[in-house]
Amino acid sequence: MSGIPRESREGDYGMSFPNSRKVFVEGGEGIRVPMREIHLSGGEAPLRVYDTSGPRDIDVHAGIPKVRAGWIRARDDVEETGPHRLPRLALDPRHGDAAIPDALNHTVLRSTGGPVTQMAYARRGEITPEMEFVALREGMEPEFVRSEVARGRAIIPANVNHPEIEPMIIGRNFKVKINANIGNSAVTSSIEEEVEKLRWATLWGADTVMDLSTGKNIHQTRQWILRNSPVPIGTVPIYQALEKVDGVPEELTWEIYRETLIEQAEQGVDYFTVHAGVLLRYVPMTANRMTGIVSRGGSIIAKWCLAHHRESFLYTKFREICEIMAAYDVSFSLGDGLRPGSIYDANDEAQFAELKTQGELTRIAWDHDVQVMNEGPGHVPMHMIQENMDKQLEWCDEAPFYTLGPLTTDVAPGYDHITSAIGAAQIGWAGTAMLCYVTPKEHLGLPNRDDVKQGVITYRIAAHAADLAKGHPGAKEWDDALSKARFEFRWEDQFNLALDPVTARAYHDETLPASGAKVAHFCSMCGPKFCSMKITQDIRDYAAEHGLLEHEALEAGMREKSEEFAEKGGEIYVPGERASGALRDAASAPAGD
Amino acid sequence: MSGIPRESREGDYGMSFPNSRKVFVEGGEGIRVPMREIHLSGGEAPLRVYDTSGPRDIDVHAGIPKVRAGWIRARDDVEETGPHRLPRLALDPRHGDAAIPDALNHTVLRSTGGPVTQMAYARRGEITPEMEFVALREGMEPEFVRSEVARGRAIIPANVNHPEIEPMIIGRNFKVKINANIGNSAVTSSIEEEVEKLRWATLWGADTVMDLSTGKNIHQTRQWILRNSPVPIGTVPIYQALEKVDGVPEELTWEIYRETLIEQAEQGVDYFTVHAGVLLRYVPMTANRMTGIVSRGGSIIAKWCLAHHRESFLYTKFREICEIMAAYDVSFSLGDGLRPGSIYDANDEAQFAELKTQGELTRIAWDHDVQVMNEGPGHVPMHMIQENMDKQLEWCDEAPFYTLGPLTTDVAPGYDHITSAIGAAQIGWAGTAMLCYVTPKEHLGLPNRDDVKQGVITYRIAAHAADLAKGHPGAKEWDDALSKARFEFRWEDQFNLALDPVTARAYHDETLPASGAKVAHFCSMCGPKFCSMKITQDIRDYAAEHGLLEHEALEAGMREKSEEFAEKGGEIYVPGERASGALRDAASAPAGD
Repeated sequence: MSGIPRESREGDYGMSFPNSRKVFVEGGEGIRVPMREIHLSGGEAPLRVYDTSGPRDIDVHAGIPKVRAGWIRARDDVEETGPHRLPRLALDPRHGDAAIPDALNHTVLRSTGGPVTQMAYARRGEITPEMEFVALREGMEPEFVRSEVARGRAIIPANVNHPEIEPMIIGRNFKVKINANIGNSAVTSSIEEEVEKLRWATLWGADTVMDLSTGKNIHQTRQWILRNSPVPIGTVPIYQALEKVDGVPEELTWEIYRETLIEQAEQGVDYFTVHAGVLLRYVPMTANRMTGIVSRGGSIIAKWCLAHHRESFLYTKFREICEIMAAYDVSFSLGDGLRPGSIYDANDEAQFAELKTQGELTRIAWDHDVQVMNEGPGHVPMHMIQENMDKQLEWCDEAPFYTLGPLTTDVAPGYDHITSAIGAAQIGWAGTAMLCYVTPKEHLGLPNRDDVKQGVITYRIAAHAADLAKGHPGAKEWDDALSKARFEFRWEDQFNLALDPVTARAYHDETLPASGAKVAHFCSMCGPKFCSMKITQDIRDYAAEHGLLEHEALEAGMREKSEEFAEKGGEIYVPGERASGALRDAASAPAGD
Repeated sequence: MSGIPRESREGDYGMSFPNSRKVFVEGGEGIRVPMREIHLSGGEAPLRVYDTSGPRDIDVHAGIPKVRAGWIRARDDVEETGPHRLPRLALDPRHGDAAIPDALNHTVLRSTGGPVTQMAYARRGEITPEMEFVALREGMEPEFVRSEVARGRAIIPANVNHPEIEPMIIGRNFKVKINANIGNSAVTSSIEEEVEKLRWATLWGADTVMDLSTGKNIHQTRQWILRNSPVPIGTVPIYQALEKVDGVPEELTWEIYRETLIEQAEQGVDYFTVHAGVLLRYVPMTANRMTGIVSRGGSIIAKWCLAHHRESFLYTKFREICEIMAAYDVSFSLGDGLRPGSIYDANDEAQFAELKTQGELTRIAWDHDVQVMNEGPGHVPMHMIQENMDKQLEWCDEAPFYTLGPLTTDVAPGYDHITSAIGAAQIGWAGTAMLCYVTPKEHLGLPNRDDVKQGVITYRIAAHAADLAKGHPGAKEWDDALSKARFEFRWEDQFNLALDPVTARAYHDETLPASGAKVAHFCSMCGPKFCSMKITQDIRDYAAEHGLLEHEALEAGMREKSEEFAEKGGEIYVPGERASGALRDAASAPAGD
């Protein structure tokens, strides 16, 4: 890991968030909930905001602290099955031969019997430390958190083999969350880069990260990521299973898939995307689509189904999959393998057929106390977005919805973080619990660090806009603090309160780099004479001097005079140079002279 | 004008839009409507898209052709008042002393008597060449265009002194338009840069441009811009008026303002932002705001009103202003001087009080046959956006709405093109006719060329997403063409169909620069084995070979078998290694074996 890129230093918390420091809100049982506290000038109280960045000054060869380890052991429902080891296939040089430092290996845990899931505890009426953590983090009551998890309306993805996470919750009565995808492919990128992307994504606000690696060293990359991740990690196990059969979908078997699920559950993956809703009879529904099947997992399963003329093992073995997931508390992210890949295909028969099956599968998973969210589209024009949310709520019984975008037009490759943020904000407002980010490279290439940051910031915007629209408690406080700083020309505070302080400051400094400009009561946009904010301050000063704004009867008095004026048959304009007597009266009334 | 920046060559049409050429759809009276025709491979028909770029290979010292000159003269309702000359104040070195080349001077026209506006003609039942041009451009009937203009539901901003424009229409039954703001300030930028920004903004898709200059050489900058602009130009005349009184709002007079209006109308400005709705009695309503008055024009007028204890001359002289505008066909953009500058202030009493007055003023302008649109916010969270549209439609009698964003959160300075595109797309869908762009520099500094392009592309996305959602005829065709190219791995076509082909290609080439990758049936995201699109093609091939997809009864047959299976008490999964007989039947049915 000597190859950490040069920009890494920018990843440093203090440099990325000037005047912020990490604080911890403490609860029982060693619970320490991280918050970012932004310090302000001018006597303003500091603002605390949600923090996903995790421990920063760490050695990625050693991993981050295992904050949940004690809570997991204390529940006394898991046993050690041995040390983590590289699986057989990972030793095959065709699949890569990267090493894992000893310190990144862990002792594997699994259930001693029944489900060890947060849902199982919630349904038994028990508030786990994870729930308490989440309650403090969201500013909600622990009992509310428990009831939402029990009802299946929210999930706390938290594999017993991922003790490093700072627990978070995904559900529509909580803050809207965002996911960042990372992962190498056959064409590009290394383990180093992926770990760095993980740390970079969480620094800027990714609530969960999906490792979508499809190239070499899949197992090793995942181990590095898990041991260094403070956020839940999701994967699509079929990708690795496909590597094991050299990329030939028809050769996939239940045994290989099952082995892969267990391998990843043992490593600590917190949620699995499983495309169990892709049924054989739905495949022909995609025949007349503009863009067929665009989900990798969906297309793999569809091909398998057609080749074997039967339903996939994801569907036929769904209850066995549930049992595996219950034994580690891996959550389902029921994949939308038939999601639309173009505006033309939005909300079609194939898409909704699968969604209905996702609902069926959701209830089966709940029978096993397994936590579930449902994945959603994709490419959907604005006027067709609400229908997605409505049907998901109805058919999937209010399980959390987790959507990619949706992208609201197809015409802007290179800008799909924006085409999709429009849809993401809208569907987040409508009740979607987590938004999967889209980077500017979508459809074109693998995102680099800059793209990851663009994607995360763009989705933090969409999620926050949705929180505001939903009236999430506390969301508006941040906007208010920033706007107050802006109005009071506290430039440094304005930068520091921004989602991306460094960029905000850099943009300002492009035109006005002098440090004096940071206290100037104007900016380069209008210059000193034209600054509306400055003029407004002048107005307030003027009005205060003349007793205008303090005068409580001011507005009433003005209205009265105005009505009087209207009654006298006044027009809205007055001929001649000066105002008529009536208008003069109306205008001068508030001055009280 | 030797100082045109190096990047200017990128501004070249052919380099920015590879495989596109400009074509003209011809109508009567010398009408030639520009369209961009994107040529595709694989036997696909070329796609024609709306084009705002204007003549490209031109000498900015000579201006662009005066395509409307003959139409204006033919109406025989204007007379020459003499050659354009620098006004007295422009000769004062304090206001700048830039020269205007002879070729950029023009002969000033004004009405010989009554209104010469498009609205006046429309109301008389006459279809002008401008209306015919617009009808061809939008794919609508000329009579429909005329009726919308007559009704005040749409405007064609087209000053008789701006014969260079390719007419365009702003109204909610037409394509959603976007405006780009440019303009120097006291702090930065030159005439050269502003003309270059104009050409740059229209190249990427700005439908109108506002020149918001507040620094030196205001008059000269505007003259350069007008003579080189194929799109309508808007201004805020109070900015220049304020320069004339050395930046002291209280010293503004009706005479100075009137002189400025005439000066700019003679130059050819197509629409004026006039903050006539800022009434004295509304000013105190802003006292408890988070961010007071953030509109420059609004704050200037508010200060004037308070200082003089009377209504502004914008309001008291509104009918005289209408008469001036009718004599040149300048349209109103009734300013929203009290728009909210923060989420906290959204939809408050001050904002809506002014909007109601805008409605009153709209009807007065219509009495004078003057075209009108209404400006709107600002900063508004998503759940409060619809109310803006509803009230504007009701109070302003369906005059076109023209909004800035709105920005849906305050927390992301540096990314306000995105925070606002979310709101812009939403309000565009709701019926807003034109969206004023916001660049990444909003709140922080003056936009440079890159920022202008970011702003324009982002707003083209918002406008197009709105067109799709409104079901505007022809909008979806573009998305379909691009998605088809994407699915068929026609990479070059996918790039060329993008709103920004150069960026799309560059992002692709970052990972796969080889020219072979442009015909590859995969990309760097998933690599060859994991490409869902490739697998889908394989599925289709496989299915075609086996007669699957051609089989019309396929889906029905599958459903039938599936129901049969369910009736037999089958579960959705089947225990054991292989599917049960019933499921096997269901799956094999379509193969017909």
